[in-house]
Amino acid sequence: QSSWFHSSPAPQQSGSPQRFFAPADGVMLPTGSFKDRVAFITGGGTGLGRAMTTTLSMLGAQCVIASRKLDVLQQTANEISSQTGNQVYAVQCDVRDPQAVSHCVDQMETMTGLPDVIINNAAGNFVCPSERLSPNGWKSITDIVLNGTAYITLELGKRLIKKQKGASFLAITTIYAESGSGFVVPSASAKAGVEALYKSLAAEWGRYGHRFNIIQPGPIRTKGAFSRLDPTGAFEKSMITRIPTGRLGTPEEIANLAAYISSDYATWMSGAVIRFDGGEYVSMAGEFNELKKVTPDQWDVMEAMIRSTKGS
Amino acid sequence: QSSWFHSSPAPQQSGSPQRFFAPADGVMLPTGSFKDRVAFITGGGTGLGRAMTTTLSMLGAQCVIASRKLDVLQQTANEISSQTGNQVYAVQCDVRDPQAVSHCVDQMETMTGLPDVIINNAAGNFVCPSERLSPNGWKSITDIVLNGTAYITLELGKRLIKKQKGASFLAITTIYAESGSGFVVPSASAKAGVEALYKSLAAEWGRYGHRFNIIQPGPIRTKGAFSRLDPTGAFEKSMITRIPTGRLGTPEEIANLAAYISSDYATWMSGAVIRFDGGEYVSMAGEFNELKKVTPDQWDVMEAMIRSTKGS
Amino acid sequence: QSSWFHSSPAPQQSGSPQRFFAPADGVMLPTGSFKDRVAFITGGGTGLGRAMTTTLSMLGAQCVIASRKLDVLQQTANEISSQTGNQVYAVQCDVRDPQAVSHCVDQMETMTGLPDVIINNAAGNFVCPSERLSPNGWKSITDIVLNGTAYITLELGKRLIKKQKGASFLAITTIYAESGSGFVVPSASAKAGVEALYKSLAAEWGRYGHRFNIIQPGPIRTKGAFSRLDPTGAFEKSMITRIPTGRLGTPEEIANLAAYISSDYATWMSGAVIRFDGGEYVSMAGEFNELKKVTPDQWDVMEAMIRSTKGS
Amino acid sequence: QSSWFHSSPAPQQSGSPQRFFAPADGVMLPTGSFKDRVAFITGGGTGLGRAMTTTLSMLGAQCVIASRKLDVLQQTANEISSQTGNQVYAVQCDVRDPQAVSHCVDQMETMTGLPDVIINNAAGNFVCPSERLSPNGWKSITDIVLNGTAYITLELGKRLIKKQKGASFLAITTIYAESGSGFVVPSASAKAGVEALYKSLAAEWGRYGHRFNIIQPGPIRTKGAFSRLDPTGAFEKSMITRIPTGRLGTPEEIANLAAYISSDYATWMSGAVIRFDGGEYVSMAGEFNELKKVTPDQWDVMEAMIRSTKGS
Ligand SMILES: NC(=O)c1ccc[n+]([C@@H]2O[C@H](COP(=O)([O-])OP(=O)(O)OC[C@H]3O[C@@H](n4cnc5c(N)ncnc54)[C@H](OP(=O)(O)O)[C@@H]3O)[C@@H](O)[C@H]2O)c1
Ligand SMILES: NC(=O)c1ccc[n+]([C@@H]2O[C@H](COP(=O)([O-])OP(=O)(O)OC[C@H]3O[C@@H](n4cnc5c(N)ncnc54)[C@H](OP(=O)(O)O)[C@@H]3O)[C@@H](O)[C@H]2O)c1
Ligand SMILES: NC(=O)c1ccc[n+]([C@@H]2O[C@H](COP(=O)([O-])OP(=O)(O)OC[C@H]3O[C@@H](n4cnc5c(N)ncnc54)[C@H](OP(=O)(O)O)[C@@H]3O)[C@@H](O)[C@H]2O)c1
Ligand SMILES: NC(=O)c1ccc[n+]([C@@H]2O[C@H](COP(=O)([O-])OP(=O)(O)OC[C@H]3O[C@@H](n4cnc5c(N)ncnc54)[C@H](OP(=O)(O)O)[C@@H]3O)[C@@H](O)[C@H]2O)c1
Repeated sequence: QSSWFHSSPAPQQSGSPQRFFAPADGVMLPTGSFKDRVAFITGGGTGLGRAMTTTLSMLGAQCVIASRKLDVLQQTANEISSQTGNQVYAVQCDVRDPQAVSHCVDQMETMTGLPDVIINNAAGNFVCPSERLSPNGWKSITDIVLNGTAYITLELGKRLIKKQKGASFLAITTIYAESGSGFVVPSASAKAGVEALYKSLAAEWGRYGHRFNIIQPGPIRTKGAFSRLDPTGAFEKSMITRIPTGRLGTPEEIANLAAYISSDYATWMSGAVIRFDGGEYVSMAGEFNELKKVTPDQWDVMEAMIRSTKGS
Repeated sequence: QSSWFHSSPAPQQSGSPQRFFAPADGVMLPTGSFKDRVAFITGGGTGLGRAMTTTLSMLGAQCVIASRKLDVLQQTANEISSQTGNQVYAVQCDVRDPQAVSHCVDQMETMTGLPDVIINNAAGNFVCPSERLSPNGWKSITDIVLNGTAYITLELGKRLIKKQKGASFLAITTIYAESGSGFVVPSASAKAGVEALYKSLAAEWGRYGHRFNIIQPGPIRTKGAFSRLDPTGAFEKSMITRIPTGRLGTPEEIANLAAYISSDYATWMSGAVIRFDGGEYVSMAGEFNELKKVTPDQWDVMEAMIRSTKGS
Repeated sequence: QSSWFHSSPAPQQSGSPQRFFAPADGVMLPTGSFKDRVAFITGGGTGLGRAMTTTLSMLGAQCVIASRKLDVLQQTANEISSQTGNQVYAVQCDVRDPQAVSHCVDQMETMTGLPDVIINNAAGNFVCPSERLSPNGWKSITDIVLNGTAYITLELGKRLIKKQKGASFLAITTIYAESGSGFVVPSASAKAGVEALYKSLAAEWGRYGHRFNIIQPGPIRTKGAFSRLDPTGAFEKSMITRIPTGRLGTPEEIANLAAYISSDYATWMSGAVIRFDGGEYVSMAGEFNELKKVTPDQWDVMEAMIRSTKGS
Repeated sequence: QSSWFHSSPAPQQSGSPQRFFAPADGVMLPTGSFKDRVAFITGGGTGLGRAMTTTLSMLGAQCVIASRKLDVLQQTANEISSQTGNQVYAVQCDVRDPQAVSHCVDQMETMTGLPDVIINNAAGNFVCPSERLSPNGWKSITDIVLNGTAYITLELGKRLIKKQKGASFLAITTIYAESGSGFVVPSASAKAGVEALYKSLAAEWGRYGHRFNIIQPGPIRTKGAFSRLDPTGAFEKSMITRIPTGRLGTPEEIANLAAYISSDYATWMSGAVIRFDGGEYVSMAGEFNELKKVTPDQWDVMEAMIRSTKGS
């Protein structure tokens, strides 16, 4: 059995893997990739939504951002607009309310016409042991994440279909949508619902010229996410330890990926679910990955024990 | 390349595969497997819920069934009870309403105490092109399937935790929960949400003695499902053609599986998602499965063409 | 936001969840469930294979067990036979060798005829950092697990098809087949291959009367598995900590599940992949599950911080 | 129940959805994105491998392509080189042979040094009913696809680790790797194995600076794939019908995606599995997607029947 093992094992690595995985700066797609395109981004006033709006705007899109806080939206819109030279519109909209959604789309139709690119990014979330969760707490999340995404998607879809206009729909979910996760259960359930919604429509609405894709981000520091998911900051350190690339993501990285998926370079992409998480998910899920802690010397001992095992 | 292919190919099969896959009759588990146990089944008055209640009752459980139509429940309860000799209680409950759920559990606590076995089986569904779906149509399904399951599960979970009592939770979802499917989009989304809820709680609430598992049934003829999913009956035939075992499932088969999962034989099962569909899902999903249509003679021709291919 | 949280949180649990999840003793299926049936189990001489053979034999099956060590097989065969009163045959077979496989099936045809139940359980595995793995080490595992399973399955399949005889095929894989896992990479890859093989044939060979299903076991102490996966015993403790049901599995539990899947109660099951792991997989994979460590008091603090968060 | 349905359904679409989904021309990433980088592509002489090599070369990479046919490789290398002005090296290598792999990497080290980008693209495949498949036919595919990918990956990985050099690894699998598929069973199994290999190493080798990702292409016409998968051309038409975007993919689209994943814009991507298939997979897998055939008038009838259903 000695030939199972390679003769000269590698020296142990020192230092964080992070040095290998520095994020790239700047916008990836060619200038003007979204010229004459309209992009609609929910939750575009803050965090990842703001970053995606910025990138699309830099690439030439007219953007419409929508969420509850008009002042926040307005300020973001102004800042991006003056940075990129392209118009960014702010529309107040609580996605939980179908009528507000319909009204928001009315406004958009007047300002920019129906969008070519839709990004469902608005969400709510907080950590909580499930036995402390009230029915109201449950609904506060699923109404925004699942129903909100559905209302936006159905409203825009119907109008686009009537106009025979194609579009790219993108939803931002999370790496625990598939696996589930304790302590963020309404979010896990609602995001899983969003993924099924998008995979379903990818199949059903292709004939109307619509594509539907999903990004599952791993942890990226934003005020909105981290203040309710890691209020004490204690969790972040342990996450970084288990992320194979040794760091959190950046909003700009997600924005480049989102722009690619929404662009003409990805017209053949539909029904895709793209995990973007530094490898965190596979690292957590694999049963023997905690053997990362075993040192080379300990491996020598274990190897010897295994070689000497006889029989089943 | 001739040795890629086996020399004497099999003769073609004639007749339906169904003859190989006759369903077994009768209850599978040992008599008394649920003696002194209380089982709570939503939607237990009809279809699959009724079958599961019957099986658990035969195996000695006291059952409580709950849904909107008290008369239907009451009749089912009486019929099962007189068949098995074990008590079946009927409680009216609209699972969309957290207060009704709480009230239902109050009644159950009085009648039987908290349950050992919980089966979330109530659901609603109908086929509809998504562009015809109203916000109200969307909510009519997700409220029952996702919120209803959550309210039942959280309410029972909290009370069981307080009493330090363990329990088995089972949810009935569907084979398109993972893949999504057009034309049943609210159901696909809500069922995906239920799966994430149960996988999440399997991880989180094991410490309280709770297990959570999922059955994804394929097509089984029940009045409730088929009248709203295949009103014309045209769809059933094409389903049977693509099901590798050549037939629909029976409620009794699901009931035996559900009883197993809920029993002490499965105390180590948690977080499992069990597809039970005659092979329909893998048959649909696999890209080359439609080559089933190719005849042996056509294969001979194709084999010869492949053998003679040169280069990449 | 106070109504997000339920007013009276549960008291903390003390003690291991294990007390809620005691394994059931005894055989689950009705006596005689496999009367007049022939079962073929690779690796049936030891560990899980031995347990499955015992259960099938108790239920009336004639069993044929096959692996490399004839003496081990012979002794197991004798012991089971004298315990159950049903014949168990031992056949030497290295599954990596297609000719040995063919010869083994020849012997079986003579002794018992072709089988009704096939369980592909033979495997090899050892922990090893992948950079220490030689090509030979890689092949030592994939040849047994993937090629061995394929040779057995194709050989039996072809002969059964010619005889127009139906059968149930079951493969034993592992919870890391889907997620992958470091340090057991050849096993992860080969088991993933086995799963694809079985899902593929579930779709393709239903027309010949064959069903194909998969059990993914979590950790169950057997000499064969644990001596090469946890030679020092250090890993077991940390596994138990993260398993929601608080204990390892038992060979008898797997055997009851395998018997069910192979029985006439499951003739409608094909293409299913059943995780049986005490909840370990979902517990590892869910991003926020390590919050299990947070105490009730700490939750009170975190809840207050979350309530007081303003804005995104 | 009338409010379930939206009042004014959309007019039926006419014509292929293809008009909405025209592929973009040209290279997506910024000029020079792979300047001073070395890329190693197996099977780089033909089909998708050739397209990926062309794109990376255009973006500034020095490329090394390797497969069995040196003449084909040499010609491709010359053509790309003269098109892009960047060096492309051709190395003969049968990936099934660990020694040939080692020798190939020796040559590369001399010519270009170890690579920054590795694309495992070489594969073999042919359609065949599994009962006609010989053990040799099975091995002819799994040896190339699974063992070949493992030998290349382990050999390069070990050398990179010793040099403390980071790298991006990409494997090209297929949409049926997860679901399995009849009639291409060795390929399905081997590709599933490759996916597990890459997810495993994403977790294990992040600490050495390595990322591992996967593209699952849907159907893209290349001589190599289509001559052995659709020798008569009959299958292509039915594939296009079920692809929501109404067309096959192009090699250039895959090349842009592969370049993105291998670039510094994706340093946070590891363990990702990206389906790129025009939506074919979700379209096949969803149980009710064949209702696409129902016409608007038929939907009116079905809607009326559903509205009038009473009870469960
Ligand atoms: N950051 C991460 O680590 C991470 C990881 C995985 C997934 N994600 C996902 O990424 C997306 C963006 O998150 P983020 O980190 O950027 O957090 P964020 O800044 O809190 O973004 C959430 C946005 O949703 C909007 N929103 C909330 N409720 C709404 C409602 N009822 N109607 C309309 N808009 C509403 C908020 O704006 P208003 O308050 O103005 O309404 C806010 O702009 C979310 O989908 C999140 O689940 C983030
Ligand atoms: N049959 C199949 O082919 C199939 C396939 C996949 C999955 N399933 C699943 O299997 C389960 C049972 O379906 P089935 O075929 O047996 O259909 P069914 O007879 O229509 O069962 C649905 C049950 O849910 C109850 N229900 C509906 N709305 C409710 C509400 N708001 N509150 C409480 N109970 C409610 C109904 O009772 P009331 O009307 O009295 O409320 C009814 O008893 C469902 O989860 C379904 O999704 C079935
Ligand atoms: N125990 C666990 O925790 C666990 C967890 C997940 C999955 N599993 C799976 O469960 C199955 C049984 O494992 P186990 O724990 O019972 O370990 P085990 O006792 O070591 O069983 C492995 C069996 O495979 C046979 N075998 C090995 N190489 C063979 C070959 N070339 N040809 C024919 N037979 C061969 C062995 O017999 P010979 O030595 O006589 O050939 C032995 O009986 C395996 O598939 C394993 O991967 C186990
Ligand atoms: N085209 C599609 O529709 C499609 C769909 C899904 C996945 N894919 C995947 O995409 C990849 C490329 O396929 P393709 O369509 O471009 O077909 P292709 O042109 O036939 O490419 C296969 C390449 O693999 C090389 N190869 C085969 N055996 C080898 C060996 N033993 N050692 C080294 N190299 C070997 C071949 O070169 P030599 O003959 O010179 O060795 C050839 O260049 C494959 O992994 C395929 O599975 C393609």
